[in-house]
Amino acid sequence: MTVQDIIKTHPKPTSVDHDALLRCIEECLDCTASCTSCADADLAEDDVHEMVRCIRLCLDCADTCATTARIVIRQTEPDLRVMRAMVEACAAACQACGDECERHAAHHEHCRICAEVCRRCEQACNDLVAAIG
Amino acid sequence: MTVQDIIKTHPKPTSVDHDALLRCIEECLDCTASCTSCADADLAEDDVHEMVRCIRLCLDCADTCATTARIVIRQTEPDLRVMRAMVEACAAACQACGDECERHAAHHEHCRICAEVCRRCEQACNDLVAAIG
Amino acid sequence: MTVQDIIKTHPKPTSVDHDALLRCIEECLDCTASCTSCADADLAEDDVHEMVRCIRLCLDCADTCATTARIVIRQTEPDLRVMRAMVEACAAACQACGDECERHAAHHEHCRICAEVCRRCEQACNDLVAAIG
Amino acid sequence: MTVQDIIKTHPKPTSVDHDALLRCIEECLDCTASCTSCADADLAEDDVHEMVRCIRLCLDCADTCATTARIVIRQTEPDLRVMRAMVEACAAACQACGDECERHAAHHEHCRICAEVCRRCEQACNDLVAAIG
Repeated sequence: MTVQDIIKTHPKPTSVDHDALLRCIEECLDCTASCTSCADADLAEDDVHEMVRCIRLCLDCADTCATTARIVIRQTEPDLRVMRAMVEACAAACQACGDECERHAAHHEHCRICAEVCRRCEQACNDLVAAIG
Repeated sequence: MTVQDIIKTHPKPTSVDHDALLRCIEECLDCTASCTSCADADLAEDDVHEMVRCIRLCLDCADTCATTARIVIRQTEPDLRVMRAMVEACAAACQACGDECERHAAHHEHCRICAEVCRRCEQACNDLVAAIG
Repeated sequence: MTVQDIIKTHPKPTSVDHDALLRCIEECLDCTASCTSCADADLAEDDVHEMVRCIRLCLDCADTCATTARIVIRQTEPDLRVMRAMVEACAAACQACGDECERHAAHHEHCRICAEVCRRCEQACNDLVAAIG
Repeated sequence: MTVQDIIKTHPKPTSVDHDALLRCIEECLDCTASCTSCADADLAEDDVHEMVRCIRLCLDCADTCATTARIVIRQTEPDLRVMRAMVEACAAACQACGDECERHAAHHEHCRICAEVCRRCEQACNDLVAAIG
């Protein structure tokens, strides 16, 4: 995505490890869109009654990833305590959503794919938390 | 705000203490709007050079409060680990933003008011974290 | 809400009629929270199958109102074409969501309340569009 | 991005032209991240005084693209009047932001790149409006 090219031109980038940072941004952007789409597909399924928890956790995960992407994208004058706490919250949302999507992976392909995206994003968040220290 | 009347009609509300929950929602909604407005006012000040950190932390705080409000509003099938981690991230964002706004309170009235809103929201978040347990 | 006090201290406010502007902000903030809550209550109802369209339009309306609030809150260097187009989109979202919530008003109190909030927000958006000219 | 794979598995997709729809989603996701990053880079520039309008329009464009992406991603029970109005607002935001970024393209590389992303997103929005009819 183009955001990575823009960040490279930032006049005063943060000291945080850039590979971990860029990967977290990329996964959060992918995950916010995927969870928005999975919640929406759940809603159209005949077994929507069974998908209520999945919809709720996908909505939470979409919102959390969107905010995390914004905070991690910003390089100017970051507060690392805020960044770390937000990335930790995002890892928790991805874990909960990934667990729930996985339960439906065998009968809903969108859940199978979304669970994979959540796992990748959770990992990228955990790696960034480790990089922030 | 009307959201409190709607939550009262929810068919399956969460077990989380409702006073703490409603107060956190109200403060997060107030704080997301206030921080959006304070960042914007900072941007129009003649000393915008001095306000860069304040703008950045107000943007983070606005995004964090918006997402926290959404997650705490939702009563259906919550994951309390996700809720707690998000409310903790929100408290961190409010603290950082409140501290920075306070530094400018003497010369920018919008920062003085915004710092107060951040303090109230931080407190409401901490109280909700305690209530979640 | 505190945002109105902060806007009063803005160093370079827009020329747009302030009463129309402040009312639109207030209604958008109320409506984004109400629609988030109504979608969530719909999801917990036993007749969730019947509520699918209501959930979808509440999610759209919540997102549209949140973005409209942010754009209207900002006073610095506005582009009035952008503001008007966004407020028009918000009026359309409020109308569609209000119509759908009204269909469920007799059996779901949250839909009855949410429909009222959507009507107020739609009116405030239409009034602001007229004020922008 | 993975969202396109998830949309392909949707049980009841919209009748809207899928190529136009997927391109609009992709460009909106790219543009919301790019504008967030460009606003942030502007803020760190020594000539931040000259970048105030650019920051403001990038913030508006980031918010508008994020909401447009969500509404266009959702396939379940869409209201095409809402979708069209939102995509039109997004085209307006991309045009205003692209024009302003272009003014700074010669001295700020992030603005040059961001202007290109805004142009592509504006085009994708206009194409989707035409496809909705």
